[in-house]
Amino acid sequence: MPLDEFDLIDRFFRHCGPESCNVVLGIGDDGAILQAGHTGGNTEELVVATDTLVAGTHFPEHGDPAEIAQRALRVNLSDLAAMGAQPTAFLLALTLPEADEQWLSGFAQGLSQAAQTFTCPLIGGDTTKGPLCISITTLGSVPRGQALTRSGARPGDIVYITGITGEARAALDILQGKSRAETNTENHLLARYWRPEPRIAAGTHLRGLASAAIDVSDGLLADLQHIADNSGVGAIIEAGKLPLSKPVQTLTSHQWALQWALTGGDDYELCFTAAPGLSSRIDACMQSIGLPATAIGAITHGQGIVCIAENGDAMALETPGYRHFGV
Amino acid sequence: MPLDEFDLIDRFFRHCGPESCNVVLGIGDDGAILQAGHTGGNTEELVVATDTLVAGTHFPEHGDPAEIAQRALRVNLSDLAAMGAQPTAFLLALTLPEADEQWLSGFAQGLSQAAQTFTCPLIGGDTTKGPLCISITTLGSVPRGQALTRSGARPGDIVYITGITGEARAALDILQGKSRAETNTENHLLARYWRPEPRIAAGTHLRGLASAAIDVSDGLLADLQHIADNSGVGAIIEAGKLPLSKPVQTLTSHQWALQWALTGGDDYELCFTAAPGLSSRIDACMQSIGLPATAIGAITHGQGIVCIAENGDAMALETPGYRHFGV
Repeated sequence: MPLDEFDLIDRFFRHCGPESCNVVLGIGDDGAILQAGHTGGNTEELVVATDTLVAGTHFPEHGDPAEIAQRALRVNLSDLAAMGAQPTAFLLALTLPEADEQWLSGFAQGLSQAAQTFTCPLIGGDTTKGPLCISITTLGSVPRGQALTRSGARPGDIVYITGITGEARAALDILQGKSRAETNTENHLLARYWRPEPRIAAGTHLRGLASAAIDVSDGLLADLQHIADNSGVGAIIEAGKLPLSKPVQTLTSHQWALQWALTGGDDYELCFTAAPGLSSRIDACMQSIGLPATAIGAITHGQGIVCIAENGDAMALETPGYRHFGV
Repeated sequence: MPLDEFDLIDRFFRHCGPESCNVVLGIGDDGAILQAGHTGGNTEELVVATDTLVAGTHFPEHGDPAEIAQRALRVNLSDLAAMGAQPTAFLLALTLPEADEQWLSGFAQGLSQAAQTFTCPLIGGDTTKGPLCISITTLGSVPRGQALTRSGARPGDIVYITGITGEARAALDILQGKSRAETNTENHLLARYWRPEPRIAAGTHLRGLASAAIDVSDGLLADLQHIADNSGVGAIIEAGKLPLSKPVQTLTSHQWALQWALTGGDDYELCFTAAPGLSSRIDACMQSIGLPATAIGAITHGQGIVCIAENGDAMALETPGYRHFGV
């Protein structure tokens, strides 16, 4: 007998992620209940973000369901990281063409693993029949007034990027059969695509230091443009300062590695800005969490992003990043 | 030039619904920020619910976009109503096959109207390309410990239904061209389908009175079964006590009107239970908000729902309600 919606939730999703004392009521009712000011007093703000992953657009339709689930939750938690928030819980709206038990079992396993890793329990959701589509809403908390936003960058601020960008873009070429590498390299790059690391520790540690932050989902330059737009400023990026991935450079030329680092999406590193006087505190902060952050440019007056090539010329770039419905 | 994702949010969704002092930061960043214990002190709990509407399953694909938006938000707010929560804000994850400006303009207009009506601003979301699918997450608040859940029904409690059920089911027949009625009747029934009334005032007024509550989305008997399952009880319903819709009875036989009232979905009335000693307080409470609630049966020991026909026999019913992925 096929599973129906209620069996499905009960069987696969009722216990997903850690127990949490903030959750008053979890899955199984019309809504979930959370303690509101859950650290005591009235000192926390609630951060909420939602992101949808459509099969064929945001992940290969026939990918491993456990990996799809990992990616879906991690990508959503990345929005909380970019706000400097600590995850509290999440909701899942899952649209599925059919209730395939094997697929669901793998998906639930991946989701549960990610939920455990980031101490973020599933507290509710909805399953519906339709083309495969995963919409996740994450809830997190931040001390009042300390959230990182896109709008605080000021001329003179330094622009930083955590970790390395361009690796997920290289993974896409592997997924699409366009390039091959030796097994270790492939595994490293594919893991970067399927299991991106939401930079939660970086986000929370940068509260009070970063003037603006965003996670790199559409591409470094495209996402930095959002900081520029929201802050009413411009930016200048020195391409030569960008950390480039060694594994990517075994797959492609230096020039393409640089292009991907600037415009490739899906890495979910944090791009942030901070006043120049804070640079030694930024370095110490990032060292304390074991994640490098590289200064790659500066915020300027005006608008628009200028990218300077290694030879000092202004760079001509291809499409600045992934834009849905774009030309 | 076609709209891209960012123009689209900016143009259609940046100002949707009322201004709210609870919203610290709305649309346009990685996440939204809400005051956590926003009524002051630490006396509120946060209620969160999510619901997806897939084109072709939950609404006719080529329906009026303003009506689709109204229905999508109202259906989601109904979950908060069933929890006894007051809406605070909502997030929209909208998946669209194409960025059709006319469609989006209508959708944004309907969404904004519903958001104003229920004092519930849009604070964030995501737009993606894919088959039309609308996922909404609603946030609300309830005084600590006072949420209505599905699990508090006790043997002897009276079972109530607000308003009238079966009208949205009749509207489906009209939408599918299976029946016709005079214009006023059709308009009344279609409005019940497209603009169901989330019973928020009923939910908030029933705090401390109702022992359990659920909104009727899949059908009265199917949804009451959830209360029974979650509370570990059974129920007996007297069909003759059910309020039947006069407009529905102009379309179909008494027998079908009763069947639809018992098993038709999409009305979003509240089915709730309360101790018999509270019946006069329940009546007074419902009168104060101008919404009738009818006692239609009682909670019993055991499990399962028994429905007694008007002649005293146990009724044989067709499918108990809509179940995704069901047989």
